[in-house]
Amino acid sequence: MGKIDDKLASLGITLPATVAPAANYVPARRLGTQVFISGQVPSRDGKDLYTGKLGSDFSTEEGQAAARVCAVNVLAQLRQALDGDLDRVVGVVRLGGFVNAEPDFGEHPKVVNGASDLMVEVFGEAGRHARAAIGCYSLPRNVPVEIEALFEVR
Amino acid sequence: MGKIDDKLASLGITLPATVAPAANYVPARRLGTQVFISGQVPSRDGKDLYTGKLGSDFSTEEGQAAARVCAVNVLAQLRQALDGDLDRVVGVVRLGGFVNAEPDFGEHPKVVNGASDLMVEVFGEAGRHARAAIGCYSLPRNVPVEIEALFEVR
Amino acid sequence: MGKIDDKLASLGITLPATVAPAANYVPARRLGTQVFISGQVPSRDGKDLYTGKLGSDFSTEEGQAAARVCAVNVLAQLRQALDGDLDRVVGVVRLGGFVNAEPDFGEHPKVVNGASDLMVEVFGEAGRHARAAIGCYSLPRNVPVEIEALFEVR
Ligand SMILES: [Ca+2]
Repeated sequence: MGKIDDKLASLGITLPATVAPAANYVPARRLGTQVFISGQVPSRDGKDLYTGKLGSDFSTEEGQAAARVCAVNVLAQLRQALDGDLDRVVGVVRLGGFVNAEPDFGEHPKVVNGASDLMVEVFGEAGRHARAAIGCYSLPRNVPVEIEALFEVR
Repeated sequence: MGKIDDKLASLGITLPATVAPAANYVPARRLGTQVFISGQVPSRDGKDLYTGKLGSDFSTEEGQAAARVCAVNVLAQLRQALDGDLDRVVGVVRLGGFVNAEPDFGEHPKVVNGASDLMVEVFGEAGRHARAAIGCYSLPRNVPVEIEALFEVR
Repeated sequence: MGKIDDKLASLGITLPATVAPAANYVPARRLGTQVFISGQVPSRDGKDLYTGKLGSDFSTEEGQAAARVCAVNVLAQLRQALDGDLDRVVGVVRLGGFVNAEPDFGEHPKVVNGASDLMVEVFGEAGRHARAAIGCYSLPRNVPVEIEALFEVR
C-alpha cells in the first residue's frame, strides 16, 4: 500500500475495478510526464448510478455527488495507468467538467467542485488544478456529469 | 510517400487541401513534441457536408460518418503542420468530440467512434487515445460534430 | 514594465486584479513550460458584465466583446501565475471557447474571435493558437462566454 492508497482508505474510498471501453479509445494515455484520462461518467460496475439533468432531475448537491463518483472513476483509471502506484502522481493539472443541465441552470462550478474537492482530499495541495466547468444539454446515456482529467506523474 | 501515406491510400482516403482560417487562430500549434489541432468540422472544399443535429436530423450512423470526415480533416491539418510527413507522428494522445444533439440523445460515444476508429485504422495501436465525448446544443453553422485533437510527434 | 505590459498599455488594456476562486481549483496551473488557465468568464471586480445567451439576448458583436473580457481575465490570471512578468510568455498554444447559445445559433467562431484577436494584438505572431469553439446551452451564472487557455512559457 502506498501513501495515496492509505489516504484513499482513510477517506473510505474504494477504487472500483476499471473497465476498458470496447472501442478504439483508451481510458488513459501517457505523453512524457502527462497522463490524460478519458471523460469518466458516474457509473460503477457498468451501471450508471445517476441519469438525468441538473436544473430538473437533480439538485446541485446531487450533481456534486455524481461528480465525485466521476472523480473516483478518474482515479481508478489513473491507478490502472500507473500500474497500481498512485504515489507516482506529482499533481492534478486540469479537470474538464461537463454538466448536463437545463438552459437556466447556472451552478456548474458547484457541481464540478464534487470532483475538485476529491482531488484535494486525496492529493492535498498537489491536488489543486486548473479547470473548465461548462454546461451540456446532453451527455452519454443522459448522465448528469462527465469529468476528464490531466495529471502530472513521475 | 511515407508509410502513413501508403496506409491512407490503402484505405482509400485522400486528405483534402487544407484551408487556414481567416482569423487569428491557426489550424495547428506545436509545443515541444505536442501538436494541437483546432476543432475540425465535417466540411470539404469550404462546404459543410452535413448540417443538423443528432437525435433529429441525423442518425447515429450518419453522425459517425460526419465524425470520420472531421477526423480526415484533422489528419489533413496535421500533415500540413508536419510539412507533409505523417511518419513523424508518434501517436494520438487525445480527441475532443463535440456532438450537436437534441437533449434526449445519448449515443455520443458511438458518434465520436467515427473519428476514433479512423485514428486506429491509420496509426494502428499508436492511434489509441484518451477522449472526451460530450453534447452541445449548437455548433458552428449547425454542423453535427466537431473534433479537436492532440498528437505526439517526433 | 515589460514589453507586453507596454503593449497592453498601448492598447488601453488594464488587467484587473485577480480573484482566486473560493474552491479547490486554482486559476492557473503550471506543468513544465505549459501554463493552463482555468475557464474565465466576462466578469470584473466580482460582477458579471454580461449575462444571457447568444442568439437571443446578445448579438454576435456583443458576444465578441464578452469574449474579449474573458481573454483580458485570462491574461490577468496568467500574469499573476508568472509573478507579474508576461514577457516570459513564449506563445499562446490553445484556447477553448464555450459559447452559451440558442440551438439555432451558428456564429461561435466569430464570438470566440473576440478572444483570439486580443491574443494576437498582445503577443503578435506568437499569439496565434489552436482553438475549439463550441456551443453550450448553459454556462455558470448564465454568462454568454467562457474561455480557457494554454500558454507556453519560459
Ligand atoms: Ca450544450
